[in-house]
Amino acid sequence: MDSAYPKNSTTEAIAAIRSFLGERLSTATPVRESHGKDQTWNEGFPPDAVAFVKSTEEVQKIVQVCAKTQTPVIAYGTGTSLEGHFTAPHGGICVDLSNMNAVLEVNAEDLDCRVQAGVTRKQLNTYLRDQGLFFPIDPGADASLGGMAATRASGTNAVRYGTMKENVLGLTVVLANGEVIRTGTRARKSSAGYDLTRLMVGSEGTLGIITEVALKLHGIPESIAAGVCTFPTTEACCRTTIETIQTGIPVARIELVDAENIKALNAYSKLSLTVAPTLFVEFHGTEAWTREQAERFSEIAAGHGSGAFNWVTKEEDRLKLWQARHDSFWASKTMMKGKTDALSTDVCVPISRLAECVEETRRDLEEHGIYGPMIGHVGDGNFHVAMFCDLDDAEEVKRIKLAYDRLIDRALAMGGTCTGEHGIGAGKRRYLEKEHGVAALETMRAIKKAIDPLNILNPGKNAAP
Amino acid sequence: MDSAYPKNSTTEAIAAIRSFLGERLSTATPVRESHGKDQTWNEGFPPDAVAFVKSTEEVQKIVQVCAKTQTPVIAYGTGTSLEGHFTAPHGGICVDLSNMNAVLEVNAEDLDCRVQAGVTRKQLNTYLRDQGLFFPIDPGADASLGGMAATRASGTNAVRYGTMKENVLGLTVVLANGEVIRTGTRARKSSAGYDLTRLMVGSEGTLGIITEVALKLHGIPESIAAGVCTFPTTEACCRTTIETIQTGIPVARIELVDAENIKALNAYSKLSLTVAPTLFVEFHGTEAWTREQAERFSEIAAGHGSGAFNWVTKEEDRLKLWQARHDSFWASKTMMKGKTDALSTDVCVPISRLAECVEETRRDLEEHGIYGPMIGHVGDGNFHVAMFCDLDDAEEVKRIKLAYDRLIDRALAMGGTCTGEHGIGAGKRRYLEKEHGVAALETMRAIKKAIDPLNILNPGKNAAP
Repeated sequence: MDSAYPKNSTTEAIAAIRSFLGERLSTATPVRESHGKDQTWNEGFPPDAVAFVKSTEEVQKIVQVCAKTQTPVIAYGTGTSLEGHFTAPHGGICVDLSNMNAVLEVNAEDLDCRVQAGVTRKQLNTYLRDQGLFFPIDPGADASLGGMAATRASGTNAVRYGTMKENVLGLTVVLANGEVIRTGTRARKSSAGYDLTRLMVGSEGTLGIITEVALKLHGIPESIAAGVCTFPTTEACCRTTIETIQTGIPVARIELVDAENIKALNAYSKLSLTVAPTLFVEFHGTEAWTREQAERFSEIAAGHGSGAFNWVTKEEDRLKLWQARHDSFWASKTMMKGKTDALSTDVCVPISRLAECVEETRRDLEEHGIYGPMIGHVGDGNFHVAMFCDLDDAEEVKRIKLAYDRLIDRALAMGGTCTGEHGIGAGKRRYLEKEHGVAALETMRAIKKAIDPLNILNPGKNAAP
Repeated sequence: MDSAYPKNSTTEAIAAIRSFLGERLSTATPVRESHGKDQTWNEGFPPDAVAFVKSTEEVQKIVQVCAKTQTPVIAYGTGTSLEGHFTAPHGGICVDLSNMNAVLEVNAEDLDCRVQAGVTRKQLNTYLRDQGLFFPIDPGADASLGGMAATRASGTNAVRYGTMKENVLGLTVVLANGEVIRTGTRARKSSAGYDLTRLMVGSEGTLGIITEVALKLHGIPESIAAGVCTFPTTEACCRTTIETIQTGIPVARIELVDAENIKALNAYSKLSLTVAPTLFVEFHGTEAWTREQAERFSEIAAGHGSGAFNWVTKEEDRLKLWQARHDSFWASKTMMKGKTDALSTDVCVPISRLAECVEETRRDLEEHGIYGPMIGHVGDGNFHVAMFCDLDDAEEVKRIKLAYDRLIDRALAMGGTCTGEHGIGAGKRRYLEKEHGVAALETMRAIKKAIDPLNILNPGKNAAP
């Protein structure tokens, strides 16, 4: 136990929580370990116990116990976050919300819903399908919506539909003092008071534990067209993206897959895609409007030297196309015999700087002998690099971490951010000051201290000490 | 001077600020009075002095003086806010940012810009026009962009383009401790740290003074179609709006003008509009897509018993149409001989409850003999009521204030908010707890206290004590 927390506080907390959770509080080693390590290179730290909760009231009671005993308390959804968000470096109680998985209400007329935090995005979309509605935010994993709100998640549809920041209407949050607040209303907009919703979104469990999420929904488009288009250079992909967006084409997805990734995809998925920088795109709308968007995009792409742009509208064909895009990480992984670990990261820059940022990164990786295929949500200026390595090879890991640092510095120098969607967690804490400056980081810390003075909520993550 | 602030603090502050601002610090009564009273029924309180600043550094120096002397400091843009946002109930220094009116940069490729806080929305749009870009947020007044960010402003385009919450990329803010922070980056999205940008947006100068604003821009649409359509009932207007949005028609504006307002408009603007609940709508896109949107809307409207829907695309015709909409407040005013004061307010509810809320309000006003025409940004569920009265008639004012309270209660009971876009200021403080609950309001206050412990920033407004 870290010296910042009183000795035996966790033991006391476990006893108190067990009195009302019974068997649903587990101290079994495999359970603790699976809740203390994500699938990335970030170091794992198991919590002392895992509480499988069923209601906001239970979370409230747990936080009250943890506040009284000064015990760390860490929220856990599906465990799919990528920056060590839910590890327990100071021990404490992990609150697993995955059983809080009820869809509480769907208001079809208002295009909104309210769900418990453990509902996953795919579960929600299955639930909504019959009503002609969908929720667009799609990080790769089938994450919980509470976790997605907590990490300000995003995905391929953000260019059209925004991120969790734009799509959360309100939250139920258990605060560090054990109070429960409900932020936001069902109104689409409000100028009443400080925006606690947006403060909680992206705070990664350090300012409160999200137990319910109210979300904006969207009508399933009448028509969807998707296609793939190759380009002579990454630059041409980016130029095409900029012009597409500037022209006002409301592209729903526009994803860059670099040549390295295409090579890997061909091998992995037995495809015969042209090995070249490629854009995967999708348009939503009425049939006529979707066609018009695709045609306009096709003209813009041709102006930048693209190959032919053919699009498909049948669901089966579209899904096949996007499956390839989604497989790219696994495909890349199979290319690297013996180097199956990856330091995965993402940055986001103004789109005018994207081509430059991607190219400089590619050169940098090449120069340092690093295999690092890139894919990007280029409409947002956001791209991912997976730097494959052998984590047991200390020299290689060191070399990669330096490239990783240079990547962040490059993105920040271009007016970008150290993470577009993965978040800060434990892994990117050292960049917070670099990005925001001392005074802004101190402001974040002052807020944290004001509403969690004992620092019990997910200590050691994001701006939390 | 209020007892919460030390005696003579303002005198000291004035002397110190005069040493570097010279003539640009005014204590002249007309200047103080014009900076201490808005155009509404909210009580006015002049500041002790008005500082006409030219740079972030000057604002910083002023706040440093005010922090040292514990003097209230109040940001002022164009003075067009509507809830007593910039009055000085505890005296102090008003910081007039209207001379900070430089457009600092426009990044056309990235569809973003950075402006000083005093740039007005019309000034920015004039500046942008040649580049084919525009900034969509349009509160009625030609407000400053700093003020619009501070009050989380909105307007007729919000249904399509969002409010200031969605359109501010980042801010330069002078904090109460005299530090300057820059929130956000030029990246379109980020999950790096707490969202200080959104915390400042809507905080009404109580958490910091905004001196620069980075904004998202949009391409001017190739084609714009606008039209007017009457309906048998307000309910039918609302049903049409719901269906339009649910169908995924990205309507750019959809405004309800009630029959009372139409009557007034006909008289005021010498028009011959049918006296009936009316929707003013606008569609943005390519020519074909705009036409398709208008046709689809027309079908939906017809399904709800609308009159004919004719739309125009020529700029001259469109502007005439919207001029009528914008004139509605003045038109209503002329209807009321001797009752030219108005208690103007706005609420916002889920759109499924809008018809009910508008109707109940109309009945309530009628029953209590109040003339209160309504207009609404119905795509957002947001509507305005102007309750005309004679402010010298105490009985009438009391009666109206009760109706006003009932309106807020009605909106809150329907899952709405006490203000969609006017803000809290001084006028709506009493509703904050009702809307958010004690624990959430305490959280806001804890944040305020953490980053402005002396409560020098705009005291007595929003969540500030």
